[in-house]
Amino acid sequence: MTDLEMIKRFQDTRKRVRENMGKVKHKIAVISGKGGVGKSTFTVNLAIAFAAKGHMERVGILDADFHGPSVPKMLGAKGQMIQSDDGRILPVIGPMGIRVVSTEFILPDENTPVIWRGPLKMNAIRDFLSEISWGELDFLLIDLPPGTGDEPLSIAQLLPDLDGVIVITIPSQVSQLVVKKSVNFARRLNLPVIGIVENMSGFICPNCGTKVDIFQAGGGRKIAEELNIPFLGSIPIDQRICEDADNGKPFILEHKYSPATEAFMEIVDKIEKYLEAQDMLRENS
Amino acid sequence: MTDLEMIKRFQDTRKRVRENMGKVKHKIAVISGKGGVGKSTFTVNLAIAFAAKGHMERVGILDADFHGPSVPKMLGAKGQMIQSDDGRILPVIGPMGIRVVSTEFILPDENTPVIWRGPLKMNAIRDFLSEISWGELDFLLIDLPPGTGDEPLSIAQLLPDLDGVIVITIPSQVSQLVVKKSVNFARRLNLPVIGIVENMSGFICPNCGTKVDIFQAGGGRKIAEELNIPFLGSIPIDQRICEDADNGKPFILEHKYSPATEAFMEIVDKIEKYLEAQDMLRENS
Repeated sequence: MTDLEMIKRFQDTRKRVRENMGKVKHKIAVISGKGGVGKSTFTVNLAIAFAAKGHMERVGILDADFHGPSVPKMLGAKGQMIQSDDGRILPVIGPMGIRVVSTEFILPDENTPVIWRGPLKMNAIRDFLSEISWGELDFLLIDLPPGTGDEPLSIAQLLPDLDGVIVITIPSQVSQLVVKKSVNFARRLNLPVIGIVENMSGFICPNCGTKVDIFQAGGGRKIAEELNIPFLGSIPIDQRICEDADNGKPFILEHKYSPATEAFMEIVDKIEKYLEAQDMLRENS
Repeated sequence: MTDLEMIKRFQDTRKRVRENMGKVKHKIAVISGKGGVGKSTFTVNLAIAFAAKGHMERVGILDADFHGPSVPKMLGAKGQMIQSDDGRILPVIGPMGIRVVSTEFILPDENTPVIWRGPLKMNAIRDFLSEISWGELDFLLIDLPPGTGDEPLSIAQLLPDLDGVIVITIPSQVSQLVVKKSVNFARRLNLPVIGIVENMSGFICPNCGTKVDIFQAGGGRKIAEELNIPFLGSIPIDQRICEDADNGKPFILEHKYSPATEAFMEIVDKIEKYLEAQDMLRENS
């Protein structure tokens, strides 16, 4: 393909994605500079929270983290795939009517590594994304691959009219170096940053109640202040979060009255307020 | 560039890398399917362990994880770079004479995200790697980017005669899905897998001694058995590991008599035995 053909193809794909997302009210990307900070767990629980707060059957998740797609497993919706008559992809229905599409569904099987070379892989993923029929949704959450490289960039460029991105980090200083890169990544793409979430923030011993800062403390708030973006809150470590994810149960439903769920729901409130403000701005413009 | 020119260029770069690594006895890559599992922390402490066991000034680390290069910070060797008269890159000297080269040294500054597009970026990184003058080393540890995509593939293909790869994971099931991909990735590249290390395996409350499996338990051993590759051991969570990394102090030197250090040193013994066996095979062939 010539450069011009490549550009035309990208524009076509983007147009199809836009059409298929035409009835999605809010689109939020969840990003992190580093993997392993709980991005997918956060995304899954945020979807559940929205569904529980009056948006049953009107929330979707696009799991675009194709190196380690884990959303289907965390939602107990693994290994399913639905294709419609006209070739378009219909999302799998998870708990509370959450519509899930994962790049896992296009990987041959869970043991196969994605070692296609860059352009080939990105074309396949873009084509896949452009075929999804989302229907009417209030919220679509997009779990992007970690990092600030070519791949999250390619996918982010494909998605039209994002409300903004949420950056997930852990408290350590080493992680903060990478958070700065994420925020700059969002800014270069002209995506507003809704805020930073500090995950895995302190651990309370379930036996004696001692608090231990396993991954240090306070890095998320510090970096948010330094970069002048909102700090959404800290979610403490709870060993049941990982257990629930492994069992395909959303933590905030299983453990409604835990400190982690409380912290999480405060963050959800802040995100909702951000989106309401966006709506008002749109109506007034 | 035509395809033929591209291939020629890659072969030239590979030849230069091979020449510059000519006096390096053992080369080991450290990989993980997911980020955030402690790959860089493991690499840094493995280098320190080798140095302390009779290889002072004869150990090197190549931090090729360009999305989140953290080795220099963890070793307290940040923000330095040395270039020789003839344009070749001389590694920075870290604690115990460890020679460090990090892709961090070619990033404009720590806040800049790497959003160069794929081929451009990989060429720059390959050129950079081919200019490094390692000198005489007993061990070179290579910290690859997480994932099984284009980027770790491109770098792994560039490195000649690797002794093998060590796969780092955390215990959870969600992580094991990704470990399988890593092992297949290594196999497709014909790289022997030295073994799997389960990191962040259980947490002992420093106050009451209760053990809590924050990221579940046993996943590393289970997946090693399933894939029929050696299980090297489990390293427990210790909050001082993250603290030390943030402060640029290698944990196994700072906390010599901790359970995490003990577990770590047993893993080092197994890696040494693997390398000795490799040496014997080479001598006999």
